[in-house]
Amino acid sequence: MKQLYVVSTGPGDPALLPPAARQALAHSSDIVAYGLYLSLLGDLVADKQQHHLALGQETERARLSLDLAAAGKTTALVSSGDVGIFAMATLVFELLDRAEQGLEPESAWSEVEIQVIPGISAMQAAAAKLGATLGHDFCAISLSDLLTPWAVIEKRIQAVASADFVISFYNPVSKKRRWQLAAAKTILMAHRSPETPVILGKNLTRENEQVSVITLAQLQVEDVDMLTLVQIGSSQTRCIQVGERQWVYTPRGYYA
Amino acid sequence: MKQLYVVSTGPGDPALLPPAARQALAHSSDIVAYGLYLSLLGDLVADKQQHHLALGQETERARLSLDLAAAGKTTALVSSGDVGIFAMATLVFELLDRAEQGLEPESAWSEVEIQVIPGISAMQAAAAKLGATLGHDFCAISLSDLLTPWAVIEKRIQAVASADFVISFYNPVSKKRRWQLAAAKTILMAHRSPETPVILGKNLTRENEQVSVITLAQLQVEDVDMLTLVQIGSSQTRCIQVGERQWVYTPRGYYA
Repeated sequence: MKQLYVVSTGPGDPALLPPAARQALAHSSDIVAYGLYLSLLGDLVADKQQHHLALGQETERARLSLDLAAAGKTTALVSSGDVGIFAMATLVFELLDRAEQGLEPESAWSEVEIQVIPGISAMQAAAAKLGATLGHDFCAISLSDLLTPWAVIEKRIQAVASADFVISFYNPVSKKRRWQLAAAKTILMAHRSPETPVILGKNLTRENEQVSVITLAQLQVEDVDMLTLVQIGSSQTRCIQVGERQWVYTPRGYYA
Repeated sequence: MKQLYVVSTGPGDPALLPPAARQALAHSSDIVAYGLYLSLLGDLVADKQQHHLALGQETERARLSLDLAAAGKTTALVSSGDVGIFAMATLVFELLDRAEQGLEPESAWSEVEIQVIPGISAMQAAAAKLGATLGHDFCAISLSDLLTPWAVIEKRIQAVASADFVISFYNPVSKKRRWQLAAAKTILMAHRSPETPVILGKNLTRENEQVSVITLAQLQVEDVDMLTLVQIGSSQTRCIQVGERQWVYTPRGYYA
């Protein structure tokens, strides 16, 4: 059998990696990933043939995974968080779609069995760390305009800002993309109080975890890097202090 | 130490339950849950003091959990999927908030250490089963208008329908709530093609799993029950047939 596992490795803490992901890695001879994610997996992938491909080589990673699996090597294509959320899984199916349309070179990709293993995404790790920010309607938006026109992204931010969703921004900035998060903030400020809670989560569940709760007015591009999750509360999201702990939650109900 | 674990048990398959959740259950003497979720946990909770509370008794479950933990019993408050997503976690913090405001009877709730353990939600299990439906911007909306005015929910559906998000509906129907999903469909039909892929997922990752891919035009309230996840594709979401498998994915890029 030709097998490709498309594996979520979660936010980073091994205690949040479910058995299904461990088993898929154990069954695989070859692991395809961006280097940082591999280092987080440590012993789980130590004896495997590892294929590191750099950031930006996402399509190449998906293609190599399909090629390896089609050549009979049981392969795991790995990404952090949930591999299905703004991550590698969709690229595998984009390539399969292209192949079915005759847009890719001849291959045995269609013979590969594929299993996608879901995982815990950064927005969930952030929510759990601080309480329950995702307790009511929420959305996730990638701020990367590499493949999506900014006009589409802007329209989406407008829509969910005015309809009062909790919003998680993925890919908020990169070395080259700096203005998009500021533009998003401008839109949000037109619809929400400057006191709206905002969570910045970096290295969630990992060593050097940094989680902070600020206000929308305080949100600055300088405090955010490409690995930061930015989560914006709705009008209902509340911060509470209980003893030494600060919690943030979005109530189930909506008291407009 | 007074300890409350707020535990996600995921979609149902034990292979998707991470070690952190198992450890929290193992450390607890008391488990508070709705009966169905307890039965899925089997041996993990067999030797525990179990507190079953019926559907509709969500606030009572959260209150009992805080009371048990405050009384020194290490307690796990459990719900399926991600406990932070339309589930029990937020109720715990609502009660703590009320207590801090003096709206609850005197208690030792503020001395309880709380740890929320995130998990895999139904929208992720459905996405993984069928490919990668959450590959680009998405949202989750509860169709329950018990605590949220329908006008708020309707505005949210309008917003994300026009801005082309992939949409997961939680609590799509109940025995008493039948018309909301039909109203949502009417809004969606004004913005999306009748051919838009729709996923219905029931008992995801469990025995008797039923997953089907239909079109928006085919969506009928009769085919949905309170445990069904309803996921609506965006204008970009595509179905492909590869050998005997049907896959559904939403590309990373947006080709408007």
